[in-house]
Amino acid sequence: MGYGNLGRGVECAIKQSPDMELAAVFTRRNPDDVKILTESVKVHSVDDIEQFSPVAGASPDKAIDVLIICGGSATDLPEQTPKYASLFNVVDSFDTHARIPEHFGNVDAASRGARTTAVISAGWDPGMFSVTRLYSESILPVGSTYTFWGKGVSQGHSDAVRRIEGVVDARQYTIPVEAALDAVRSGSEPDLTTRQKHTREVFVVAEEGADKERITEEIVTMKNYFDEYDTTVHFIGAEEMARDHSGIPHGGFVIRSGKTGWDEENTHVVEYKLALDSNPEFTSSVLVAIARATYRMSGAGMHGAKTIFDIPPAYLSPKSGEELRATML
Amino acid sequence: MGYGNLGRGVECAIKQSPDMELAAVFTRRNPDDVKILTESVKVHSVDDIEQFSPVAGASPDKAIDVLIICGGSATDLPEQTPKYASLFNVVDSFDTHARIPEHFGNVDAASRGARTTAVISAGWDPGMFSVTRLYSESILPVGSTYTFWGKGVSQGHSDAVRRIEGVVDARQYTIPVEAALDAVRSGSEPDLTTRQKHTREVFVVAEEGADKERITEEIVTMKNYFDEYDTTVHFIGAEEMARDHSGIPHGGFVIRSGKTGWDEENTHVVEYKLALDSNPEFTSSVLVAIARATYRMSGAGMHGAKTIFDIPPAYLSPKSGEELRATML
Repeated sequence: MGYGNLGRGVECAIKQSPDMELAAVFTRRNPDDVKILTESVKVHSVDDIEQFSPVAGASPDKAIDVLIICGGSATDLPEQTPKYASLFNVVDSFDTHARIPEHFGNVDAASRGARTTAVISAGWDPGMFSVTRLYSESILPVGSTYTFWGKGVSQGHSDAVRRIEGVVDARQYTIPVEAALDAVRSGSEPDLTTRQKHTREVFVVAEEGADKERITEEIVTMKNYFDEYDTTVHFIGAEEMARDHSGIPHGGFVIRSGKTGWDEENTHVVEYKLALDSNPEFTSSVLVAIARATYRMSGAGMHGAKTIFDIPPAYLSPKSGEELRATML
Repeated sequence: MGYGNLGRGVECAIKQSPDMELAAVFTRRNPDDVKILTESVKVHSVDDIEQFSPVAGASPDKAIDVLIICGGSATDLPEQTPKYASLFNVVDSFDTHARIPEHFGNVDAASRGARTTAVISAGWDPGMFSVTRLYSESILPVGSTYTFWGKGVSQGHSDAVRRIEGVVDARQYTIPVEAALDAVRSGSEPDLTTRQKHTREVFVVAEEGADKERITEEIVTMKNYFDEYDTTVHFIGAEEMARDHSGIPHGGFVIRSGKTGWDEENTHVVEYKLALDSNPEFTSSVLVAIARATYRMSGAGMHGAKTIFDIPPAYLSPKSGEELRATML
């Protein structure tokens, strides 16, 4: 459901999964205007989606096992996920951390009513970073957890800069501070301010004759986005922007250090790092693995809203329990 | 069950877990000879263990929720875990990778018969490394996984050196090769030989007048232990051994790199790293978190042998689903 960067990433990830099949793509646009990569798969208008719903009685050859909802967290998912959870098993990548409890509640009500399984917030943060935080804190209850993001492109911050007068295009990178990472890795559990953890770097293509000093000032003082960070602004040409900044890389670190021993005399450091060429494609790859788990949970009668915290890891893999124990344990 | 390094580590980890209580320690030794750290908890002979078994009808005040079996993988656990799984919910840290399927089968039969829950191979490898391999491969099915161990003390290799004539004491460190780690992190999916991945460093206290050249030769050519590695041998005094090599640090890396995109044009690297001051204490901390999950699985009717692959991560945490979603997702 939805065919932007995330939807295209899901399509690519399904191609890598021999046990999965792309059944259909649904769009709010005119289906004729949406060209997808997989030949032989049809693009449908979202208006026709109920015909594919097992809850609404679709025939077995038409019924869709899992609907992967590839919308945005700001306005799409809060409306779409509860709506479609009443018709399908669903997965989304809802990533507005502060609104997760509310979203979970809405999706839970819809999916329990329809006896479907709905996994929300599948991706890397929330997602793989979250489950790493959970495991690490459960194992090392006395300690501190740190999350760093980057180096990577923040879409929201790039958009905010683009709204400044005189800006034609912008790309914002979030960069973890190496000294902060090292302090955390030492196990010393430092207190770190926002400014000490990350810096921001912005590349701007300005209109001809625009006041670059004013643009820079507006960026570095922008409330909630930049004012708490050390921000560097570079003005570049449109060609350089296209050549060097067209990718959507991202990643980051979850680090927990904790103490064990009768007198907490031993220190342990757990570090999980992601370095991603394509933020949306990695998120899509998580969505597809979680879709496999969603189908299995549905089959096991595990209905209602779920998160990665509720999923037995084996459900994510196409391999049998026996294979997993023999090859991966 | 068992009070060596691992048992003492479990005792310390329980102290850090307000929702858990150490009920009793069982030993094969004379209980009077075993001094534990927790006042008010009794050490019992293993001969009396059935009195504490809920399966054998122990009274609620005496019945033990989970028995954490802290024996060795070579001879203890293959016998103990099936035996006690017929009396208790159990957890072990069985780590002989090649024999996991056989061990799983034996434990499964015993625990299904008794309707108990038995989690095997809880620790960090097998354990946290395994679940990282599983998640990473499920998300990035096209790619390669690498596991590196160290820098850390290998007990088995240290023991092997101690058996050489003229050796009084020995400590063996396994060390990952930095260049190999960097090659893997680059996403290039290199083919690496055993020799390219790890080196071994051995510290030896020799008998006075012992032939150090012969000892060195016996070490570096030892089949299965050292012959496939570049090994450095240092002769040191007993004092230096006690001062600099009495700890049991360990750790390592699981790294998966994989490709996504329609033409596999994007590379992603997932890296999980552990740096542990005390190998047994970290393993014990995993055992205790898994014990919490074991109790919950038992309550949910999930009987039989299980591994970390089968456990919903939320079961490891003392926090409620609501708390976890609000604070950690």
